[in-house]
Amino acid sequence: MQQIVDFILELDKLKGVTRKVKPLGLARYENSAEHSWQLAMMASAMAHHAETEINVNHVIAMLLVHDIGEIDTGDTIAYATEGMAERKADELAAVQRIFGILPDDHGERFLALWLEFEAGETAESRFANAVDRAMPVLLNLANNGQSWRENGISHARVVARVKPQIHAGCPALWEYLEIELDAARDKGYFGA
Amino acid sequence: MQQIVDFILELDKLKGVTRKVKPLGLARYENSAEHSWQLAMMASAMAHHAETEINVNHVIAMLLVHDIGEIDTGDTIAYATEGMAERKADELAAVQRIFGILPDDHGERFLALWLEFEAGETAESRFANAVDRAMPVLLNLANNGQSWRENGISHARVVARVKPQIHAGCPALWEYLEIELDAARDKGYFGA
Repeated sequence: MQQIVDFILELDKLKGVTRKVKPLGLARYENSAEHSWQLAMMASAMAHHAETEINVNHVIAMLLVHDIGEIDTGDTIAYATEGMAERKADELAAVQRIFGILPDDHGERFLALWLEFEAGETAESRFANAVDRAMPVLLNLANNGQSWRENGISHARVVARVKPQIHAGCPALWEYLEIELDAARDKGYFGA
Repeated sequence: MQQIVDFILELDKLKGVTRKVKPLGLARYENSAEHSWQLAMMASAMAHHAETEINVNHVIAMLLVHDIGEIDTGDTIAYATEGMAERKADELAAVQRIFGILPDDHGERFLALWLEFEAGETAESRFANAVDRAMPVLLNLANNGQSWRENGISHARVVARVKPQIHAGCPALWEYLEIELDAARDKGYFGA
């Protein structure tokens, strides 16, 4: 029991990992723990729009663990282009450390979920990645493009970054976002 | 799709609902969105200690929605003794409004999960309630009793408040906490 408690308290650190977008109406930046909750709810509400039939519980399990490596590495903006392989190696080392706090083989189940999300090869992980890519877009669309403007991200970079995974995992969501992103460009929500 | 997006963005408000305990090492108070994520992870890591065999996916689904009513009502300290019936009625009205944003009957599934958690009659909801009661205790034990001292909560009130549900849903966790709570009393972690 002490090992499980140690693990749960270690997870507390994800509440202090800040991302680039702000929650609607708040002055502070979003953290990766509350982001993970919102993704799980989004997956649950949108599962019937996945590109194929999926096990939504498995998607939720992946989304709950997918950012835990950031406890050691911090969040990196999705538009960073350099050092990706090194960052992913650091995140893998982090989740191996953190899931390794758990007794017996309980941590291996979480590690398998994390690896499946990263590989993005199963239907469930494709949908999970679509949801993860789409959520900050939805917040920016509702937030006058706050993090796009703060970080000088253009409409073209957003589309190039998010379209492949959203379209692959949740085509109906991409159809919706494509129209909204065009409208946001006309409203000046982008940087650069 | 627009209704689902409206629902997801409405959920963003839970990130602004603050609780009484602070995340470890942070100066700010915890919010109910990140709390919900941590509970889901705790349930997943501790499911094998439930008092009977449970469907952990169902527990997680309940924990993800259980605080959503606080978007309209705010968080109330667990030690409040008056006005409970009125608060619960307000929370029910809130989740009916929020889940009602979703199209067709998709909101009814979330409402059923919320009601099951509140009733606490199924094995899954007993375990979910145990986890919800235990998490702030674990944080306070790691935080020198921060919210107990700030709010003048005694050892006896904590035990009276959390023991019934933790013991019913996760007996091994209560065994652990009983010892830790006694040690915390000796260290002066309680108020009043």
